[in-house]
Amino acid sequence: MSVGKSIKRVDAFDKVTGRAQYTADLCDERALIAKVLPSTIAHGRVKSMDTSEAEKVKGVVKVITCFEVPQVPFPTAGHPWTTDPEHQDIADRLLLNEHVRYYGDEIALVIAEDEISAKQALDKIMVEYEEYPHVLDPLESMKPGAPLIHEEISPNNVLASSSSRVGNYEEAIKEEGLTKVEGWYHLPTVQHAHLEPNVCYAYMEKERVVVVTSTQIPHIVRRVVGQANCLPWGDVRIVKPYIGGGFGNKQDALWEPLCAFASRSVGGRLVMIDTTREETFVNNRVRHSMHAHLTSWLRPDGSLVARKLKLYSDQGAYASHGHSVTAKAMGSVNQIYPCDNFEADSYTVYTNKQVGGAMRAYGMPQATFFTEAHTEDICQKMNLDPLEFRRKNSMPEGYVDDFSKNVNYYDTYNQLMDKAIEMTDYEEKRKLYAQPQTGPVRRGIGMSLFWYNTGVWPISIETSACRMVLNQDGSIQLQLGETEIGQGADTAFSQMAASAVGIPVEDVNIVSTQDTDVTPFGLGAYASRQTYVAGFSINQTGTLLKERILQNAHRYVRMPVELLDLVNGKIVRKSDGKELMSLCDLALNVLYCHEQGNHITAESTYQVKSNAYSFGVSVAEVEIDIPLCKVEILDICNVHDAGNLINPQTAEAQVHGGMSMSIGYGLYEQLLYDEETGRVLNDNLLDYKLSTSMDHPDMKVAFIENTEPTSPFGTRALGEPPACSPAVAIRNAILQATGVPFNTLPITPQRLYEGFAEAGLLESDFETNSRREHYDRTRDELNHKSQETA
Amino acid sequence: MSVGKSIKRVDAFDKVTGRAQYTADLCDERALIAKVLPSTIAHGRVKSMDTSEAEKVKGVVKVITCFEVPQVPFPTAGHPWTTDPEHQDIADRLLLNEHVRYYGDEIALVIAEDEISAKQALDKIMVEYEEYPHVLDPLESMKPGAPLIHEEISPNNVLASSSSRVGNYEEAIKEEGLTKVEGWYHLPTVQHAHLEPNVCYAYMEKERVVVVTSTQIPHIVRRVVGQANCLPWGDVRIVKPYIGGGFGNKQDALWEPLCAFASRSVGGRLVMIDTTREETFVNNRVRHSMHAHLTSWLRPDGSLVARKLKLYSDQGAYASHGHSVTAKAMGSVNQIYPCDNFEADSYTVYTNKQVGGAMRAYGMPQATFFTEAHTEDICQKMNLDPLEFRRKNSMPEGYVDDFSKNVNYYDTYNQLMDKAIEMTDYEEKRKLYAQPQTGPVRRGIGMSLFWYNTGVWPISIETSACRMVLNQDGSIQLQLGETEIGQGADTAFSQMAASAVGIPVEDVNIVSTQDTDVTPFGLGAYASRQTYVAGFSINQTGTLLKERILQNAHRYVRMPVELLDLVNGKIVRKSDGKELMSLCDLALNVLYCHEQGNHITAESTYQVKSNAYSFGVSVAEVEIDIPLCKVEILDICNVHDAGNLINPQTAEAQVHGGMSMSIGYGLYEQLLYDEETGRVLNDNLLDYKLSTSMDHPDMKVAFIENTEPTSPFGTRALGEPPACSPAVAIRNAILQATGVPFNTLPITPQRLYEGFAEAGLLESDFETNSRREHYDRTRDELNHKSQETA
Repeated sequence: MSVGKSIKRVDAFDKVTGRAQYTADLCDERALIAKVLPSTIAHGRVKSMDTSEAEKVKGVVKVITCFEVPQVPFPTAGHPWTTDPEHQDIADRLLLNEHVRYYGDEIALVIAEDEISAKQALDKIMVEYEEYPHVLDPLESMKPGAPLIHEEISPNNVLASSSSRVGNYEEAIKEEGLTKVEGWYHLPTVQHAHLEPNVCYAYMEKERVVVVTSTQIPHIVRRVVGQANCLPWGDVRIVKPYIGGGFGNKQDALWEPLCAFASRSVGGRLVMIDTTREETFVNNRVRHSMHAHLTSWLRPDGSLVARKLKLYSDQGAYASHGHSVTAKAMGSVNQIYPCDNFEADSYTVYTNKQVGGAMRAYGMPQATFFTEAHTEDICQKMNLDPLEFRRKNSMPEGYVDDFSKNVNYYDTYNQLMDKAIEMTDYEEKRKLYAQPQTGPVRRGIGMSLFWYNTGVWPISIETSACRMVLNQDGSIQLQLGETEIGQGADTAFSQMAASAVGIPVEDVNIVSTQDTDVTPFGLGAYASRQTYVAGFSINQTGTLLKERILQNAHRYVRMPVELLDLVNGKIVRKSDGKELMSLCDLALNVLYCHEQGNHITAESTYQVKSNAYSFGVSVAEVEIDIPLCKVEILDICNVHDAGNLINPQTAEAQVHGGMSMSIGYGLYEQLLYDEETGRVLNDNLLDYKLSTSMDHPDMKVAFIENTEPTSPFGTRALGEPPACSPAVAIRNAILQATGVPFNTLPITPQRLYEGFAEAGLLESDFETNSRREHYDRTRDELNHKSQETA
Repeated sequence: MSVGKSIKRVDAFDKVTGRAQYTADLCDERALIAKVLPSTIAHGRVKSMDTSEAEKVKGVVKVITCFEVPQVPFPTAGHPWTTDPEHQDIADRLLLNEHVRYYGDEIALVIAEDEISAKQALDKIMVEYEEYPHVLDPLESMKPGAPLIHEEISPNNVLASSSSRVGNYEEAIKEEGLTKVEGWYHLPTVQHAHLEPNVCYAYMEKERVVVVTSTQIPHIVRRVVGQANCLPWGDVRIVKPYIGGGFGNKQDALWEPLCAFASRSVGGRLVMIDTTREETFVNNRVRHSMHAHLTSWLRPDGSLVARKLKLYSDQGAYASHGHSVTAKAMGSVNQIYPCDNFEADSYTVYTNKQVGGAMRAYGMPQATFFTEAHTEDICQKMNLDPLEFRRKNSMPEGYVDDFSKNVNYYDTYNQLMDKAIEMTDYEEKRKLYAQPQTGPVRRGIGMSLFWYNTGVWPISIETSACRMVLNQDGSIQLQLGETEIGQGADTAFSQMAASAVGIPVEDVNIVSTQDTDVTPFGLGAYASRQTYVAGFSINQTGTLLKERILQNAHRYVRMPVELLDLVNGKIVRKSDGKELMSLCDLALNVLYCHEQGNHITAESTYQVKSNAYSFGVSVAEVEIDIPLCKVEILDICNVHDAGNLINPQTAEAQVHGGMSMSIGYGLYEQLLYDEETGRVLNDNLLDYKLSTSMDHPDMKVAFIENTEPTSPFGTRALGEPPACSPAVAIRNAILQATGVPFNTLPITPQRLYEGFAEAGLLESDFETNSRREHYDRTRDELNHKSQETA
């Protein structure tokens, strides 16, 4: 069996040697270059545009304004489509927008022979605006009198809202002796900051338009390009080469619809849109900023009696994934800590800002933050042990979710916590750091649980088709609509296919490039669905291929099919394991047989009607330099239960990436806005601080491999989960170290300063000794204590 | 039904606008350039090679010599492979050859950053040869003592020979009163001269090598690249974009194996081999020069009693398609004019010349020439009417060939001749020109029949696999291994698919680029097989797709499947023709169905176990200027029975091309050799005279559409047949006009001069009047007579 082994990634060599081709590498150098004109107001209308000077620039082929695009709104979210209009994504966007809704909104496009001409022409377009007031805060935006951003869709800027009611909150809180804990939690707008900005190029082929693009979701982008361009969807072809990360940003139609339109506007010539980091920050998608108010009522023993959540999500200017993300966040609270009386209301609200879309873990980093920060706020207030609180209140073995029908088949959270405790000396350190710390340098250790779903069923369809073709040498081609986006999916798919068919994994040639013209329908990389969902279609198709192989083998080895098996590329007799024929010989004979030749292939669709819980825990240990307002992460650990691992090494790498992303979320990352203009202030990687390997210790990763019973390979989500819990574990560690609850991310030095100042920590007379000496002494002391306990 | 209509070619717009991408267009400009070092002797061995100076040239990446390639011979012929070693093509070639066998043989390869560096390096390679005598004529090559060209394969330079025996020739010729007619016929070496020389580029992807190439046979080239590089065939990927013609030259592995080797030699970097016209003439393939001696014995009434054929084919230096071509030519004689006593022996002989390979009509232009020239030689000698001779002796209705089992289901030859006679006034003109002509300008009209097979069964396997995918808008994707090579195959395939499925042809998106990684197995463009063979798999797969569509439709329209049909993209009820649902609506509902979604596709292989006769006739009318030794074609006409036409307009275009090629074959084209060195003297399009539109009148084309009963679309070969018969019809017209039998092609002014001189025609006193006046008068006279008869 190939699954379960840490084989080398199938794309490793090509990627480290630079052989691997990405979209921009593939584009012909003669391509026309298209550049977008961004608006310089946050809200208003383009009254007129004078492009005459721009058109005179040498090299300019065409200028397209917002007045010249189809007035047919389209949706951009990378969701599976549905024939049910009620469940279709909101179509609120045009290719270019005369109603400008954020600073940078796309209002015109220049197509030129080269980038310099295109940029020169952009400068020469004269725009006259009618300016409206703008609103940057979702709570402000919901208020009566706020400027309406999409009046055709919402009379109050609320894109959508939803509620959840379990038990009876109002009755439950009447119980005597309850403690009420409540708090506001604020999550920033952050961006995916994948290595490769979205780049795409389009050209026409016959009557059809082809877009080669850095996307996670080629089959879905095909549909959106068709919708936006008013084309039959079959007239659109999307090709997806290797991509340099996506993290959900490329689970949206980004520039592809406009690029297709541009090519069609110039007679099908090759047109490329290659974007800058600045455009990626401003014109793509961001993680939703959210504001949550959580109230909990508890008995003295720490048992939860009732909870109430109010959740406000900042959608920005266009719908994109919209309320799906908010709804997912809202749904998190009462599954991680099921409570009999729960009341939640959530609102996704348009603002004049960047568009909130999908981003790794899709609302769950926000939800995990406010839930697990609140957990420790409760424990702090009620003097409870957070570990005990979690053991007592977290989702128990046997829990079944009403909606998804997901089951927690194991005593997972206890297993996870036990493992994390073992790896981090959590209990010893918790105790140690609970002793009074008075110096300028203090330590704490914090924890967070999370859960995650696998795929989108039952909200949307979950389907994956797979095709396998037997080559003459006994190797196979493997085609799937599910995409390699840097995460190692192709390697996992190859391993599963090898296991399903019965051949060595080296004999699986995965077709990494998706091309909607020939790639089986699959929905792409999102919702941590791929290994789980494609596992079904790979297993089903592999079984089908193997059956066909054995039926053909029957003609040559003269044994009944029932007695035959395919093991490691050999036709074997089951009864004694004797090797009867190599698959290579069989393939040659079958393909070139004069009597009855055959091209052995298999293709099948599997529609998944299940979902699966994925679980995990983070523990973070920090050292805080109070006067310097500095956080150092001393230790950080994630333990996941993603079911059986297909490839432990790539699984670990996946977790490393998510942890790093969450560290940035907790401590550094946020998009900042100029209140007056609505303009993003830090739309580049100098001013927007990403977490790097300099910012964290070696990240510890472990797995509990509880077999997922619904999956043919026993597996469940792992792509997004690692990004859920580290941030709040850090926040909880800071809380232990300093006693200060930081409820707004990121916990920057500025926020630490404000928090420490408010808590009076900066008034201590740390200055009696020289700072350096004091620190060193404190540090030694703490280290000494740590060693004693170790 | 889409078949039978002259729809616009599916690739028309892309090709006329220049949008269509060919191999060289697709290659990245940063590719390394590889250039081959040709030998400067015709026969011998490379004793040593000094590449040190070449390697010093700036930009040179690597020099590979004939001493550094795998010493594993491989075959190059584009035949389907077979597991039977007896029937595999002869493997007599290495990637680079230390044993040099023709002037220009490839002995080293330079890989450089650019073409100039590569060429400079070629000049600096020092080669030391051991020279052997060379032989350029196959009859000389067969003689004892001739230099052995492949001693490991043949002790007498005969690559292969075969014989045919019907009845008893020796007994039959003893009959009293028979007339014996015999003659030698000589056919030249000609080249395909397709517009786009072979160009390919290779690179590595993971552990595999990818070759993008201008080929007719991607799946076969994959196998040969594997063989030549000692790689598992699944480790090779071949991609075939649009190509600018092939005519059989690209039914061979040309530069692909070497290009793959080159890339693998430089760590998988991108390497391009882009060849010149000169290399195309010298290093690719040519049509076999043949020498035939035909003897016929006839009764006074013109009935054939016995025939004997000796056929010698000039293979050149390597086996390539070898004896297959000769054997096909040999087999032609006794099918077109079945004779009870027939004896034939044929030899394919190595010489130190260009390699004979496949070329449009594969031996049949040669066979048609010697058979049909001989027909008119018989009639001239015995004073028979050639038309009557043909009506009497040609293959009759109901004829069955013993080997192929082909049947002539109709009275085809008479139908064809009747149509051609009607179109050209053949009978009137034949009579007119039979009157004594004495002036310097004379006219004649000639005819030729031919037959052709469709595909290669039963000699080799005939198989085609097809895949169809239903798009969301009710259009389909169509994938086949059979290739568009400029002939319009994609259009015919699209029409057949539309008919098989029941949708408008505009809704068929054919995937024109073959990619062996994802394209169903199909053998490619050769043997005029594609429309016939792919017709089966398209029909079978289309039927399968339609069944799946109707099964799915059943869920939505609540009618039994048996009552449903798919007509023009609509689900209809058969009983009353009512349109129940569009295919687009169905496709959307099925794909996105929450209950039971499906990606509707179909894929199947059809192995064809039949073959089909294709027939035709040419009539040519010429005017000969005897003193100027000039031939003018006044009228030329081809009538074909290719069964039902899929697209009459593209069929006609196909015939035009073949006729033009055959006119060149008859009058202009031949490769000339320097006897002393063996070097080709006219390896370019200035010195090698192709027929152009300046050289012929409007070409008349007509069809007799006798349905081929074995084909689902009633069709049979048309790709190659048009190139069979025009040349000899011209020769026969010259014979009528002048009485001189030209038995060596091409009939150049030089040959006319020699023939006329020998016949004493140049001794006439044409000079009594001024040449111009005389010509004008003669011309007027003949025209006048023509008009009278019209």
